[in-house]
Amino acid sequence: MSGMTRRERPYQLFYWPSIPGRGEFVRLVLEDSGAPYVDMARGSGGAKAIFRVLASTGAVPPFAPPVLRHGELWIAQSAVICRYLAERHGLAPKTAADRLHADQLQLTIADLVSEAHDTHHPISVGLYYEDQKREARRRSNAFREARLPKYLGYFERVAKRGRGFLIGGRASYVDLSMFQVLEGLDYAFPKAFRRVSRSCPRLLALRDRVRTRPRLAAYLASDRRLPFNEQGIFRHYPELDG
Amino acid sequence: MSGMTRRERPYQLFYWPSIPGRGEFVRLVLEDSGAPYVDMARGSGGAKAIFRVLASTGAVPPFAPPVLRHGELWIAQSAVICRYLAERHGLAPKTAADRLHADQLQLTIADLVSEAHDTHHPISVGLYYEDQKREARRRSNAFREARLPKYLGYFERVAKRGRGFLIGGRASYVDLSMFQVLEGLDYAFPKAFRRVSRSCPRLLALRDRVRTRPRLAAYLASDRRLPFNEQGIFRHYPELDG
Repeated sequence: MSGMTRRERPYQLFYWPSIPGRGEFVRLVLEDSGAPYVDMARGSGGAKAIFRVLASTGAVPPFAPPVLRHGELWIAQSAVICRYLAERHGLAPKTAADRLHADQLQLTIADLVSEAHDTHHPISVGLYYEDQKREARRRSNAFREARLPKYLGYFERVAKRGRGFLIGGRASYVDLSMFQVLEGLDYAFPKAFRRVSRSCPRLLALRDRVRTRPRLAAYLASDRRLPFNEQGIFRHYPELDG
Repeated sequence: MSGMTRRERPYQLFYWPSIPGRGEFVRLVLEDSGAPYVDMARGSGGAKAIFRVLASTGAVPPFAPPVLRHGELWIAQSAVICRYLAERHGLAPKTAADRLHADQLQLTIADLVSEAHDTHHPISVGLYYEDQKREARRRSNAFREARLPKYLGYFERVAKRGRGFLIGGRASYVDLSMFQVLEGLDYAFPKAFRRVSRSCPRLLALRDRVRTRPRLAAYLASDRRLPFNEQGIFRHYPELDG
């Protein structure tokens, strides 16, 4: 609860209750900053709370979860939510240029997340994995052989210039998101990740550095942290790991 | 050149010289605001100018074009560049909440753009369309039947609350990007777009309103405006239009 007065109302997060998904990027910022929040769909309301929000009549409705409510403000898109929270809780870079670069990296992470998702759903989110398995195998091959090395190689180059963190020599929300992506890739593609990450010592060190931040370590050990599973973005299907 | 002093150096845009692609979202903001810019890869340097930037040693290198240079600042990711330019040239919403909603909508537009791209490249950007044609047909079916109506229905809902523009009752860079997406979808999927957009009168009116803005109308009639083609994001393959 650091940095917030007692009177401040807790943030409300709306995200699917059974997967880490894109909501987890938001949770990591909330947990690392110690901000009070309520994970609305994990309470008694369940996923119904999300459907109410998607049908809501606010100024600009969300297209999809995660959605954050803060008083009168409702915002969607995980990159936007993460930055908003980070700026309020000391997890955003200090200079204007560094903030633009944080946005840039966060959107590149979001692109990687989407590509990781599409390895198991290359045809349609409306079909089961089993109904697009052959295409998933083809797309995963291309992901493991070309996209994964390209993205991780890129972020390693960024980390190399970053003095311990991705931007400006201090921890930011982008580091928390990078941690989550590395965890997800390691879960979904353990063989490919081990192979590719051998050339990414700085990313692996960054992952460890994030994991041991006191508030995050406590969170990761708690039952608030949802495990990866085969309904989420990062799924472990051995046949897609080559 | 409005709003800029004579001394100000022109922006430098780095993007592939032969397709509108993601660079076009940036060009529309530059052109509508009358800001001086140089489209670096369309000069004598060609695409080589881009490869030099991607290999550059700046603070945070870009993962992919478009890249904008402004003095010492280099930024990538079209949504970040568009917002940066819009804030400098009167094309960003005025309130903090509206700016967050602009970010949110711009990222939702970017998601739609990525999905439109993947209709013709569902397996790998490293393969030709011809090598993933069967999968492209399947993905395009799902896009036309489910995703396109979902996205356009969503943006129509937003437009309905927006008093003529998507946010805050005045034109912003998000409207320019919406225009470009509608143009691209109409080009790539003329039959599906005609069918789906029948229920989106406000989006169609918005498209016309953007198209006739004086600076944009002049730009669209000039040879600076690159036509859509089958090397870009929005490609017209009749077999993918159902």
